[in-house]
Amino acid sequence: MDEIEVVEVNEIEAENPVMVEGLPGVGHVGKLVAEHLLEEFESRVVQRIYSHHFPPQCAVDEDGTTELVCAELYECEVDGVEMLVLTGDHQSQTLDGHYKITEKLLDTAEEVGVERVYALGGVATGELVEEYNVVGAANDESLVDEIAEHGVEFGEGEPEGGIVGVSGLLLGMGELRGVDGVCLMGETSGYLVDPKSAQAVLEVLTNVLDFEVDMAKLEERAEEMEEVVKRLEEMNTEMDIGSFPSDDDLRYIG
Amino acid sequence: MDEIEVVEVNEIEAENPVMVEGLPGVGHVGKLVAEHLLEEFESRVVQRIYSHHFPPQCAVDEDGTTELVCAELYECEVDGVEMLVLTGDHQSQTLDGHYKITEKLLDTAEEVGVERVYALGGVATGELVEEYNVVGAANDESLVDEIAEHGVEFGEGEPEGGIVGVSGLLLGMGELRGVDGVCLMGETSGYLVDPKSAQAVLEVLTNVLDFEVDMAKLEERAEEMEEVVKRLEEMNTEMDIGSFPSDDDLRYIG
Amino acid sequence: MDEIEVVEVNEIEAENPVMVEGLPGVGHVGKLVAEHLLEEFESRVVQRIYSHHFPPQCAVDEDGTTELVCAELYECEVDGVEMLVLTGDHQSQTLDGHYKITEKLLDTAEEVGVERVYALGGVATGELVEEYNVVGAANDESLVDEIAEHGVEFGEGEPEGGIVGVSGLLLGMGELRGVDGVCLMGETSGYLVDPKSAQAVLEVLTNVLDFEVDMAKLEERAEEMEEVVKRLEEMNTEMDIGSFPSDDDLRYIG
Amino acid sequence: MDEIEVVEVNEIEAENPVMVEGLPGVGHVGKLVAEHLLEEFESRVVQRIYSHHFPPQCAVDEDGTTELVCAELYECEVDGVEMLVLTGDHQSQTLDGHYKITEKLLDTAEEVGVERVYALGGVATGELVEEYNVVGAANDESLVDEIAEHGVEFGEGEPEGGIVGVSGLLLGMGELRGVDGVCLMGETSGYLVDPKSAQAVLEVLTNVLDFEVDMAKLEERAEEMEEVVKRLEEMNTEMDIGSFPSDDDLRYIG
Repeated sequence: MDEIEVVEVNEIEAENPVMVEGLPGVGHVGKLVAEHLLEEFESRVVQRIYSHHFPPQCAVDEDGTTELVCAELYECEVDGVEMLVLTGDHQSQTLDGHYKITEKLLDTAEEVGVERVYALGGVATGELVEEYNVVGAANDESLVDEIAEHGVEFGEGEPEGGIVGVSGLLLGMGELRGVDGVCLMGETSGYLVDPKSAQAVLEVLTNVLDFEVDMAKLEERAEEMEEVVKRLEEMNTEMDIGSFPSDDDLRYIG
Repeated sequence: MDEIEVVEVNEIEAENPVMVEGLPGVGHVGKLVAEHLLEEFESRVVQRIYSHHFPPQCAVDEDGTTELVCAELYECEVDGVEMLVLTGDHQSQTLDGHYKITEKLLDTAEEVGVERVYALGGVATGELVEEYNVVGAANDESLVDEIAEHGVEFGEGEPEGGIVGVSGLLLGMGELRGVDGVCLMGETSGYLVDPKSAQAVLEVLTNVLDFEVDMAKLEERAEEMEEVVKRLEEMNTEMDIGSFPSDDDLRYIG
Repeated sequence: MDEIEVVEVNEIEAENPVMVEGLPGVGHVGKLVAEHLLEEFESRVVQRIYSHHFPPQCAVDEDGTTELVCAELYECEVDGVEMLVLTGDHQSQTLDGHYKITEKLLDTAEEVGVERVYALGGVATGELVEEYNVVGAANDESLVDEIAEHGVEFGEGEPEGGIVGVSGLLLGMGELRGVDGVCLMGETSGYLVDPKSAQAVLEVLTNVLDFEVDMAKLEERAEEMEEVVKRLEEMNTEMDIGSFPSDDDLRYIG
Repeated sequence: MDEIEVVEVNEIEAENPVMVEGLPGVGHVGKLVAEHLLEEFESRVVQRIYSHHFPPQCAVDEDGTTELVCAELYECEVDGVEMLVLTGDHQSQTLDGHYKITEKLLDTAEEVGVERVYALGGVATGELVEEYNVVGAANDESLVDEIAEHGVEFGEGEPEGGIVGVSGLLLGMGELRGVDGVCLMGETSGYLVDPKSAQAVLEVLTNVLDFEVDMAKLEERAEEMEEVVKRLEEMNTEMDIGSFPSDDDLRYIG
């Protein structure tokens, strides 16, 4: 097994598809969107990406069988839009792994003529979000103008710390290789898995790519999370702590 | 010395043996089982595996002589069952080291036609265990069915965090290379070296492979540990702390 | 993309220029000087240095476009002095990355016949600085004598911990390759971005290289910082804490 | 510059010398002995070992000149005993660096026919030492017998955690390559630089190798340290803390 081992499970048939990246991250926003797409539409896995940079472990499925940790690339077609959707349970555990995994993704993108990469994620606001804005960034000025028309907020150097991990590198390294890339980041507290933020990002994606998707399951999950947040706020009031629970208690309850 | 250096000490004579892995881990369950097998049955070392990924140190034996840190593969035959038993005092100190060490083990497994790998370990329950169940996972559905008949519990995605380290990778990477693998995990508190959990795992192994082994020494050691636990509980009662001592105080007293 | 990828943006035309390094560090002194030079004089980027050792991220500009994290080498000519100025937003995130990035810089230095490297930085005193001395170090004794004439303090093994990062390695590795190197370090508290310390370093550099530069913008920024320090001191007096605020509160407010 | 770069400064003239390793470690015992040998006897540097695994920095000498961090191998002859003495200010900062640096040392050892390696260090007792014993370990049983005759204590698996770093690997990896190695470890509190422990180790070394050395400077330094310890104990008594100061306060005051 190579440092990054890409196993071709099925041939990619799409011509000039878009690539949608939804690895775990802030509020699990990108992952929620990617998984919702794979649940709602017919898809098939085309690549499994194994790597020494993923945690050294196997996952155990509900039937007791195991699978080596990997990221998976799926192919699906939605209302005539051809997509490659990347998701997985882990990010690289090392700094250089992010670079090397992204390199492999861009190799695939070039091979099948991906015309644009959409890197999906969340941007942490540090407080409970009232209005679910989507913040954008792009590796070419013309993309900024196009995507801004769909209600995405650009500029003022947001997010301040830059875009970290595979999402950021798909844009940064993509530019060097001539692959267009847009990052769509849903505002989220950063404390919880956030299906509502995911919904906001997905709505932008459906507008930009012009397809429709049933949001019912994301909405259900959002309602469950609201219930959790409500109970937490009640607990706070009772205990007279006064404000939002701390990071340590709540991070990624999902 | 290479990054992973496998020194062949003796030729492996077994044909299609099973491989039993017992490196250190939760409750030292796997290591206790492997060492018990090597104590009870005649065996000879066939490989020493040195690695830059093990801690940079030598061990000092009781006579004052030193040995470079390594993992050791032994060959033994028990009631007609041919086994390769892997044990050692250390796991890889790096993430990629786990992958690379496992790769070497699977190279050996393929070379000598290992027909199945048994990765032994513990699964932490976080509380004192009353009934010593053995939880299983396997890299092929047919193995699940076979092993479940021996009283091993499968499924419901247990253990939740997956199986970490060489044990997990033997199954995960083994599947990619067509090597059958079963993981047998004894339930254990996770706070103490647990010979009782090791006994439960070993009983399963003797059932599955159909051999007999004297458990006396493991039982003795289990009784010693019970004595330790009892004293700790008394101390707790006296000090009115109320419950089980914390991780930091007790982890791996053995 | 290689581990260190040097992209030649423009050909270096200078013959036997000096190289001025101003990556981020203590008080951001070196970076402030480098950036001031690039603001005040005409320059053009000649190299972008990308690396797996930089953080895996892209920066987001004010217009919403992204750029992969890198260090940039600029060429400029000031009063007949030809300079290569290196700056960037990040240092290597790994230990060996510092060595490897410095190796590439010295490759360039040798290729274009750089006659001397000036590594700029700050040296932390741990308290508010009254008089902005510049401490020096050089990889050849003759350089010490020459630079000491410009009011730079040498010797007594200062700074105690040695010179860390690319600055230190440009001198240390430079010596092995026969590249002359001088490090100029402005004394600074170590708690704040310090344009005043940068001014002191820049004054030495203009003396040594014999060119003139308008300091107005650095002075303005220094006054802003003084305002910040003053407010912090007032806060301390009011709160009766007595002394200078702690590292954690103030480090690199800029 | 390679990952490990050995620069030959002078040719090694000794035939079948012993190698004495004194890199920094517990109580700086090994380093104190090595440096004392180099101070007391004529010597010349034969190798400088640079490495990506050492901290990325240069040291600044008292005259303001810099030197890239390295380990240095010296050659000296004492009463007819030919020695290669290794010392330096740093250990490898990475785990695999220890292995790789040791490999290079053993390459040299084999090239010049080193007949035995003496790895010097300290073993931490956790309390102030009354009687300065020297604990030993060796990579061959016959060496144990020989060295034990010089009052060195062997056995009972001491030190419990094994021997870490280059000292441990010189014995461990040396054994695999047929290079005899003895580790001499002076008992020391582990809290302070310990010239007295160094003296004890040096006395053993002079006995084993049969040469004489003036201990005056080590004794002076030991007296200075005793003064420090005395003052610290007085402070404790006054402040009624009762016992020896904690690790964090005292570690490596020297």
